[in-house]
Amino acid sequence: MLDAAEHRALRRALEIAADPAVPLGPNPRVGCVLLSPAGEILAEGHHRGAGTPHAEADALSQASSSAAGPSLRGATAVVTLEPCTHVGRTGPCADALIEAGIGRVVIARRDPNPVAAGGIQRLREAGIEVELELPEELAAAAAALNRGWEHGLQHARPLVTAKVALTLDGRAAAADGTSQWITGPAAREEVHLLRTTCDAVLVGTGTARVDTPTLTARRPDGTLHSRQPLRAVMGTGTAPSLPAVDGAGEELRLLTHDPSAALEELFSRGIRHLLVEGGPIITAAFLRAELVDELIVHLAPTLLGAGRAAVEDLGITTLVDRLDLDLVDASPLPSPGGPTDLRLTLHPRHRTA
Amino acid sequence: MLDAAEHRALRRALEIAADPAVPLGPNPRVGCVLLSPAGEILAEGHHRGAGTPHAEADALSQASSSAAGPSLRGATAVVTLEPCTHVGRTGPCADALIEAGIGRVVIARRDPNPVAAGGIQRLREAGIEVELELPEELAAAAAALNRGWEHGLQHARPLVTAKVALTLDGRAAAADGTSQWITGPAAREEVHLLRTTCDAVLVGTGTARVDTPTLTARRPDGTLHSRQPLRAVMGTGTAPSLPAVDGAGEELRLLTHDPSAALEELFSRGIRHLLVEGGPIITAAFLRAELVDELIVHLAPTLLGAGRAAVEDLGITTLVDRLDLDLVDASPLPSPGGPTDLRLTLHPRHRTA
Repeated sequence: MLDAAEHRALRRALEIAADPAVPLGPNPRVGCVLLSPAGEILAEGHHRGAGTPHAEADALSQASSSAAGPSLRGATAVVTLEPCTHVGRTGPCADALIEAGIGRVVIARRDPNPVAAGGIQRLREAGIEVELELPEELAAAAAALNRGWEHGLQHARPLVTAKVALTLDGRAAAADGTSQWITGPAAREEVHLLRTTCDAVLVGTGTARVDTPTLTARRPDGTLHSRQPLRAVMGTGTAPSLPAVDGAGEELRLLTHDPSAALEELFSRGIRHLLVEGGPIITAAFLRAELVDELIVHLAPTLLGAGRAAVEDLGITTLVDRLDLDLVDASPLPSPGGPTDLRLTLHPRHRTA
Repeated sequence: MLDAAEHRALRRALEIAADPAVPLGPNPRVGCVLLSPAGEILAEGHHRGAGTPHAEADALSQASSSAAGPSLRGATAVVTLEPCTHVGRTGPCADALIEAGIGRVVIARRDPNPVAAGGIQRLREAGIEVELELPEELAAAAAALNRGWEHGLQHARPLVTAKVALTLDGRAAAADGTSQWITGPAAREEVHLLRTTCDAVLVGTGTARVDTPTLTARRPDGTLHSRQPLRAVMGTGTAPSLPAVDGAGEELRLLTHDPSAALEELFSRGIRHLLVEGGPIITAAFLRAELVDELIVHLAPTLLGAGRAAVEDLGITTLVDRLDLDLVDASPLPSPGGPTDLRLTLHPRHRTA
């Protein structure tokens, strides 16, 4: 069980780990807070991406360089991820905590990486108390922090979130092709925030051609968020380059129709969480291939009765073959003065899983 | 303000008013509870349909015939609807309450019927205390009790609820036409309960031909609910008679494509609340004509990618002409062991309103 100071420290460690200046991709985001036996914060540290010190090393170095130069004997380290045991740029973090005289370590998440795991055992063998039991809410936050990275370790492909905006009757555009905007300001702002939590966004050549989207993550005032996703355009059709925007993520053309091939290429470039933003043919291709892990639907309370479907042919002809999903959440997205859209979060049930 | 006894009495009055043995249609459902000055229930009464005593008369007659023969001097009458002032089978109820010596009347809902209204004024002129302020929840229940009847007085046509069951991508059936069942048991049970709250259900000839629905209101065990709606089939196409079911509502053929004409005919037959159950052409026809007051969507968390649309052509070609609705409620409909459907309640925004 965590005491109140450890509880606060873990919240803080999760917060600094999620620093938007830190890139996503193939390294986990980790935060570390060192507490005195009396529960005062002695130092904080976090990992800032490939080639930089681990969070524990960052915090230990901050503690040793501080004017007060506090002893860490009997101190508690609160970390968002199991300390590593492998020799990287700064040596195994578990050993560094042991050498520093840390007495107790609170760990929010076990390391799913077999190369790095073993920290808990090594700490315990050194006589250090290791605490793994924490409130559900904090455990969920620690799990969410690196879900793309963890997914990559387990499945050797990026986590795929697909997002669609559609009307009550499943339309993504009216009969004449007009589609801006199906949803209201709150839903559109949420899409931009979603882009900041993914390594890459992907559209098909058709969407690139017709909508010429910038695929940047913007604030309502039009300025760019500090983290920008790679911008992937998939397909063998012709499509112009995406609009050039200062500060936007790199653009990548994926000359394939095959979602597996696209994911392989993206994974090799360090992408661990992909946001598929359509159009309907691309979304259907990922769904048919059972390569969507999470579907986010922005449902607008409007009817068109005709127009482009939001999801194209899935190769399903009869009801029993339908693609079932588990509804995880349904939340209203009210826009001041406008209509209230609905955000649905769903997990496809994979038949082959 | 209501005291605790009046609060309980009003709940009871609403309950007995909604007796499922009482027909819906062109008469309001009304309940009345008489309370002693000490807050004890002296008598209850409710209206049982055209040609039967009003709720107040029913309660007064029960009180006068009871063995105890309690005096009503200074008693409180708690009624779900403003007592009438017109001479019906039993004389104006307001006068009857005055003559009985009632000292206070709690009224949950004003009578929107100009022929019957005026009861509040007459009671006050007789020196009786009239209480109209009540908790929001009870006021809403009193409003809901006769919403079809009230709608008929205000608009001279039935209240129209349309219900559609569709997939996330707006399909009502798979490409081969299979449609049973898109939604789970909880949603299907809710449809049967919805039928018991309406005077009539309506489908098109296409649905009658293809699905041969019984259009009865059934419990999960297959037995019939005590109140059964009239069963209307609309359209000029050929369609067989609906399946004969003992205890089912009357069947009515409406030989028209025009929703207004259908509503006129139904209204003349006493229908005050109609449930339009499809198919997609009929639903679209009512929506296009702006004759849907409430849309209930049972949304199944599944994708088909192809197949029959749940709503057919609305005559909309471009996005700005879309039919917007206000999302009033979104609630999950979990079925044990099955998928969780979503019930959306929406109110179309009528351009001509």
